[in-house]
Amino acid sequence: MFAMIGVFDSGIGGLTVVRALMQRLPDYDIVYFGDTARSPYGTKSPQTVTAYALEGIEFLLNQGAGVILVACSCASSVAIEALKQRSRVPVFESITPAAAMAVKSSSNLRIGVIGSQTAVGSGEFEKNIQALGANIQVVSAACPLLVPLVEERWLKKPETNRIVKKYLYPLKVRQIDTLILGCPHYSLLKKTIQRKIGRRVHIIDSTVAVAEKLKDYLHAHEKVAASLSKNGRIRLFVSDLTDQIENSAKTILRKNLRLEAVSSI
Amino acid sequence: MFAMIGVFDSGIGGLTVVRALMQRLPDYDIVYFGDTARSPYGTKSPQTVTAYALEGIEFLLNQGAGVILVACSCASSVAIEALKQRSRVPVFESITPAAAMAVKSSSNLRIGVIGSQTAVGSGEFEKNIQALGANIQVVSAACPLLVPLVEERWLKKPETNRIVKKYLYPLKVRQIDTLILGCPHYSLLKKTIQRKIGRRVHIIDSTVAVAEKLKDYLHAHEKVAASLSKNGRIRLFVSDLTDQIENSAKTILRKNLRLEAVSSI
Repeated sequence: MFAMIGVFDSGIGGLTVVRALMQRLPDYDIVYFGDTARSPYGTKSPQTVTAYALEGIEFLLNQGAGVILVACSCASSVAIEALKQRSRVPVFESITPAAAMAVKSSSNLRIGVIGSQTAVGSGEFEKNIQALGANIQVVSAACPLLVPLVEERWLKKPETNRIVKKYLYPLKVRQIDTLILGCPHYSLLKKTIQRKIGRRVHIIDSTVAVAEKLKDYLHAHEKVAASLSKNGRIRLFVSDLTDQIENSAKTILRKNLRLEAVSSI
Repeated sequence: MFAMIGVFDSGIGGLTVVRALMQRLPDYDIVYFGDTARSPYGTKSPQTVTAYALEGIEFLLNQGAGVILVACSCASSVAIEALKQRSRVPVFESITPAAAMAVKSSSNLRIGVIGSQTAVGSGEFEKNIQALGANIQVVSAACPLLVPLVEERWLKKPETNRIVKKYLYPLKVRQIDTLILGCPHYSLLKKTIQRKIGRRVHIIDSTVAVAEKLKDYLHAHEKVAASLSKNGRIRLFVSDLTDQIENSAKTILRKNLRLEAVSSI
């Protein structure tokens, strides 16, 4: 039986990873699960995030996922060991691919990271970046208001500009030359973030990094690639469905794909 | 056996109700449950909110609650019938007490309501206010960013002022003379909200309204009052516990009470 590419996220922000996959691996079938009933994860404890993420991975395995991408950097940072242990298929987290891209791109070895409270607080981005070279400085900032601002779809409002500027200020004064967007939602604020951090700073989108990582992996592992179905089919599951979630999904995917609610989780 | 006053909320915002009860009924024992692992409720569907609220009420009943206050206006607006059916003790929601106070206070019969997406979207505030008199105009606004701003503790930041002003603008131009704070979190922004909506507008805090309602009820129902224990003991349970939650609890209660995590829910 052929398997699908599974994508897990705490909510619908991870659809940015689906978008990146659709561009890079357009034929591959994708199954997505977003835990919208219990999102956001970024303010919750590692124990709670791990328990919820395990249920999400279980759901994707039951749906026939043959590889799994964890879009949520919060689950990637605090739950990845538990997820890998539980899963019988390869699981990719979204921290190390972004860290590798950032180190490759940086000239002055000052790298910034923005993400949720729990993801930044875990120190995983910092650890993974510093493992890749000596003398790399990492400046990180938790930006808990950016997810609600994106979900309110205030993408171009002056209030959002001000808040982004405020969050980025400590990174700007430390003169970073590379910035990791460590949360799938932030992709949608990329233009604002670029304007506020400065044109010379190279932005690494963790959702693009994890999609690239999978593409490289499938290129190198032909057997796994051959085991995945390629009918260009996409199934999107969420644990709670509202009009706002549907609208946000449309904004992210730039097309109208049906979301299916699963209440069993 | 003596019973306690139970207070249910989607998170820790409902501790504002505990604070209001401690001032009005200082001897009564209180048991609180805040569903921090799955908060916020305000962006979620009525079905999901009802399912989660039922579990919260069950927990409070098992802890020995003899009456239950639902601090969360979202659960109050979409789940109250299900909660009343399930509970063997009286359940008080936070919509009608605030509606009654607002109608009593208003001279020009133009009443504003601010709350979460789900609470405002349910139309329950509007329905309850208009049931109390003819020709009452209700202007309501969903303010989804205020909860994250409070949780980030940006209570006095200029960004918060701007966002509050923006949300209140449509209510201000309609010249309301009374404004209901339809979410426990908003109590903490009361000063900012008062400044932005104007000094002449009377603010009704739904957390104060529901505490007053219980006080009146106990005065009128001596048997229930006699069945409740009065040792001034307070137990606070949450479904997820982080440093930020502990700090916010301290800010709300203005004293250091221990939070206990329950993972069983």
